[in-house]
Amino acid sequence: MSRVIAGAGVDTKNGDGLPPTLEWIVDEAGDGVLRLIDQRLLPGELTFLECRTVAAVADAIRELAVRGAPAIGAAAAYGVAIGARDDGGLAGAVAAAVTLRATRPTAVNLAWALDRTLDAVRAAAASASADAATVALGVAHRIAEDDVAANRAMGAHGVALIPHRARILTHCNAGHLATVGYGTAIGVIRAAWEAGREPSVWVDETRPVLQGARLTAWELQRLGIAATLVADVMAGSLMASGHVDLVIVGADRIAANGDVANKIGTYALAVLARHHDIPFYVAAPTSTIDPATATGADIVVEERDPDEVTRFGGTAIAPPGMPALNRAFDVTPAALVSAIVTEHGIVRPPF
Amino acid sequence: MSRVIAGAGVDTKNGDGLPPTLEWIVDEAGDGVLRLIDQRLLPGELTFLECRTVAAVADAIRELAVRGAPAIGAAAAYGVAIGARDDGGLAGAVAAAVTLRATRPTAVNLAWALDRTLDAVRAAAASASADAATVALGVAHRIAEDDVAANRAMGAHGVALIPHRARILTHCNAGHLATVGYGTAIGVIRAAWEAGREPSVWVDETRPVLQGARLTAWELQRLGIAATLVADVMAGSLMASGHVDLVIVGADRIAANGDVANKIGTYALAVLARHHDIPFYVAAPTSTIDPATATGADIVVEERDPDEVTRFGGTAIAPPGMPALNRAFDVTPAALVSAIVTEHGIVRPPF
Repeated sequence: MSRVIAGAGVDTKNGDGLPPTLEWIVDEAGDGVLRLIDQRLLPGELTFLECRTVAAVADAIRELAVRGAPAIGAAAAYGVAIGARDDGGLAGAVAAAVTLRATRPTAVNLAWALDRTLDAVRAAAASASADAATVALGVAHRIAEDDVAANRAMGAHGVALIPHRARILTHCNAGHLATVGYGTAIGVIRAAWEAGREPSVWVDETRPVLQGARLTAWELQRLGIAATLVADVMAGSLMASGHVDLVIVGADRIAANGDVANKIGTYALAVLARHHDIPFYVAAPTSTIDPATATGADIVVEERDPDEVTRFGGTAIAPPGMPALNRAFDVTPAALVSAIVTEHGIVRPPF
Repeated sequence: MSRVIAGAGVDTKNGDGLPPTLEWIVDEAGDGVLRLIDQRLLPGELTFLECRTVAAVADAIRELAVRGAPAIGAAAAYGVAIGARDDGGLAGAVAAAVTLRATRPTAVNLAWALDRTLDAVRAAAASASADAATVALGVAHRIAEDDVAANRAMGAHGVALIPHRARILTHCNAGHLATVGYGTAIGVIRAAWEAGREPSVWVDETRPVLQGARLTAWELQRLGIAATLVADVMAGSLMASGHVDLVIVGADRIAANGDVANKIGTYALAVLARHHDIPFYVAAPTSTIDPATATGADIVVEERDPDEVTRFGGTAIAPPGMPALNRAFDVTPAALVSAIVTEHGIVRPPF
């Protein structure tokens, strides 16, 4: 991975002042490169990573330089295209998919995007109709474009759920930065804001990796949407004092029965929302729904390095040797979900 | 306030390897000084502050060098003694109490300790029976001794609530460091541990000030009690996966109806515990019960500097200019509390 300085890649296409989360560019030597925002450095630094190898894409996903279920799906598809280009067509694509699939276990969009890309490469190889790398790159571009379109469609549908001047609590980052553009849960908030509904957002900081404080805050600030940061522990108090009208979050995998795996802390918000009779919404593209997973009990929850809990940035916050547990996701039962917003419309229980 | 190096003040009296949270010492010049652990620097540094003036005691309380409802009560009583000594007896004591009362609004032990000390000073002044400073110091010593005795009594009573090998979730620090010694909620855990019940503890890190990660982790590690640190967002997931047998926390104020003000995040734990049918216990001395506060709705919840949320240690975690809300406490309705442990025994609802 090489670094490029801030300022590169500012998105003029969408006109929203947000640089692309990820983008396929052609460098001076004529080589295709996956360029993505290094989200580990936000909000302090806006820096881009250029991934030229499968290993670089895998590292970027594993180390959270790119994160968010839809964004890692698209990044992985580009990784397969790099594998097909550099390692002999179909065999390279298959090897790339093996490497990329192992990076993170919970988000199903990763597996979905890899399978979609590989299927196309295999079909092309079987009919000898086209070069594997070209086919894979075409599928990756389509996944990226479809993602933005799906997010805009989710926004258009979801806006019906957002009352005028709603005070909305969100967790983690399910925005532009979690997707190829526009966002899922934040996309719905953006659509409400674009429709003049004047939403305001409570941004959960989202320990341990602080995607809320670092990414959602940055994104909403750039968009000009009113937002206030809170520590995760404050959500219950805000609901009890009548300051939250609804909760909306993204998802990393939705089981066939509607159970939702999402960033750790989501489940507690759903329980709190139910206790206070506040709607709890999930916004996710249908690529996040996994028919092969019957219920949430079948979802593998990633456990990450305990250092993410015992350290904060570079600083130790716990005494040396303190054991810590770092579950990255939790599962919210379908019974606690008021509605799921997809690109095809709003689905209400029973799912 | 002056600083003394680590190593001073290690408690040989209690034999538990924990230095006194606060202690009245006589310095080389023969002056009485309130020495306390500077808890802002734990767990990185064990450093003691020597408070020689009322202003120094007030600063130490306001800036969280000393925190925890029982500990700030005792520290404030010593502050009144310093005021009586330095500023002309009763008048100085009254002025000190005004300054100290304004430091933090939520914990009632502060007001309780100030009133108890002032009452004694006033009575002595009325009968001209004793010097105000001597009387105030005597009351402060009694408050400190009573606190340790109350905590040990709470432990002796509370142990009945702790099953063998219980997996206990606690929030913030309601331990040795929150009291003059032994702790309230952690005191109950210590008593169970001393009784051979082999408890293990999930330590909530407790954003934004991280009293769990910094203080409870340090304390339990020194005591040798098994403990694992988690981010606050993980509690719901741990309960759902069957890894929590009970929750026990301290309190900053308990209203007449049993509503409990405690560190922000406590209320969410109580809602989650109820949802999972897990007992939720509060351990607090009767000095934390405020008969003058009818219900939790009457409790003033302190809001602290938003920088505690937007920064972490010295590092900004949110983009510049990001608004943040920093409620320091929340209120848990009595209906969600399974039992309150006091020095007089276990009280169950209705309170």
